[in-house]
Amino acid sequence: VDFLTKLNTSARERDSWLCVGLDPVVEHLPVGLPGRAAGVVEFCSRIVLATAPYACAFKPNIAFFEALGADAFAILKDVVDSVPDGIPVILDAKRGDIGSTAEMYARAYFDELGVDAVTVNPYMGWDAVRPFAERPNKAAFVLCLTSNQSAESVQMLPVEGEPLFLRIAEMVASWGISCGLVVGATRADMIAAVRARCREQVLLIPGIGAQGGDLKRSVELGAWQGGGGALINASRSLLYASGGEDYAEAAAAAAVELRADISRCQPST
Amino acid sequence: VDFLTKLNTSARERDSWLCVGLDPVVEHLPVGLPGRAAGVVEFCSRIVLATAPYACAFKPNIAFFEALGADAFAILKDVVDSVPDGIPVILDAKRGDIGSTAEMYARAYFDELGVDAVTVNPYMGWDAVRPFAERPNKAAFVLCLTSNQSAESVQMLPVEGEPLFLRIAEMVASWGISCGLVVGATRADMIAAVRARCREQVLLIPGIGAQGGDLKRSVELGAWQGGGGALINASRSLLYASGGEDYAEAAAAAAVELRADISRCQPST
Repeated sequence: VDFLTKLNTSARERDSWLCVGLDPVVEHLPVGLPGRAAGVVEFCSRIVLATAPYACAFKPNIAFFEALGADAFAILKDVVDSVPDGIPVILDAKRGDIGSTAEMYARAYFDELGVDAVTVNPYMGWDAVRPFAERPNKAAFVLCLTSNQSAESVQMLPVEGEPLFLRIAEMVASWGISCGLVVGATRADMIAAVRARCREQVLLIPGIGAQGGDLKRSVELGAWQGGGGALINASRSLLYASGGEDYAEAAAAAAVELRADISRCQPST
Repeated sequence: VDFLTKLNTSARERDSWLCVGLDPVVEHLPVGLPGRAAGVVEFCSRIVLATAPYACAFKPNIAFFEALGADAFAILKDVVDSVPDGIPVILDAKRGDIGSTAEMYARAYFDELGVDAVTVNPYMGWDAVRPFAERPNKAAFVLCLTSNQSAESVQMLPVEGEPLFLRIAEMVASWGISCGLVVGATRADMIAAVRARCREQVLLIPGIGAQGGDLKRSVELGAWQGGGGALINASRSLLYASGGEDYAEAAAAAAVELRADISRCQPST
């Protein structure tokens, strides 16, 4: 089944457009968990288990796993394997490489790790996106307008009267629906212009919660007509909802609440 | 000692602006080498040893090591450790990440692995470069104009009358000399414009050899006034110069030749 169908099905079954970001930091794990590798796997897989009824996707950030050292890939694989069948996993890797290098990443992430999609950087053009986007049933999420402060200095450069990120959006639209876009909630007002150029694509929207992005406007402006397609990512606000031993239950409660908030903001049909 | 001094010293001592790229592919290793990990370490460290008298820098590509699986980082570390003191190592990682993620990469690459510089993607702006460039004695090489085919579709977009990559070059110039730039030899004619904006920075120039870039013009246009500063990278043409058991000697012979070609093209003072 293709990525978009899998995501749509998962979203419909859970009545949710919430994506749970998995960014584990060993120093922030609740006390009582075993050390390093085992602790991260237990923490993440319990978060996954608790939030899976309310999250239509999961997004592990590979850098947080790489920081764990030699067995990083094995730990990440255990976490990916803990995600129930039918829920797509988007690997946040922000890769931007070409040719055989990108091919190697695609093989490692899709075949060995078994994720469904990867985030990629558009600076090198289609060459860097294709190895991910052209895989059957897989997808690439292209960085378009990111939520960090200095993003503007590049992404808002004026290209023939419009900001660079809109030209990127236009390109991504031409690459087809196996490409989604990453658009930060911290720049919610600009999401409408991206959606206008990419009517059928999924927008992955980080930056609500800790980063202070505007959830309401992100969903209103980012959703498809009739709702859906604006995938709201939350990481820290769910992972560390309580910070105590009840972290999984607290994450689930926070996910239920956020799912409701997202639903409430969907455009009515 | 700061990165630029280390590189300059290495270049002067060896009378060379050649950078040897380490992109090992298990399937291409000469016969007679042990399997996977051990074979890659032996292959790369013998290449390093044989070419170190003629190469002012080495550039391992992290993706080629990651493809080796679980012990990728250990293998890469063995290869980095095989580089003689005084020769800088540039890790080709093309990372483009921010905040704590970029910090984690910087810690892993600089502190644990011990490399001197990392290639980074400029699409997210200074936030994604700073964690690498601001480390004392370390450096970041920012992708500016890459040698792949579809690079143009993004990097040549017109920003107020000039191509995007020149705006990136201008930004990098303002970030200081702990930032270098990556400019492909396949677009040698455009190197002059980058050099005009970044007079003191090092240009890392891949794309000669297998990719068919123009060595002569790359050095002529990319070098500092008086010569130097255009760091010519060669990978496959050295690594697989013979393809046989004499691969290290063949790589050394090819390095000697390329070093001479580079020297011959330096602008005279």
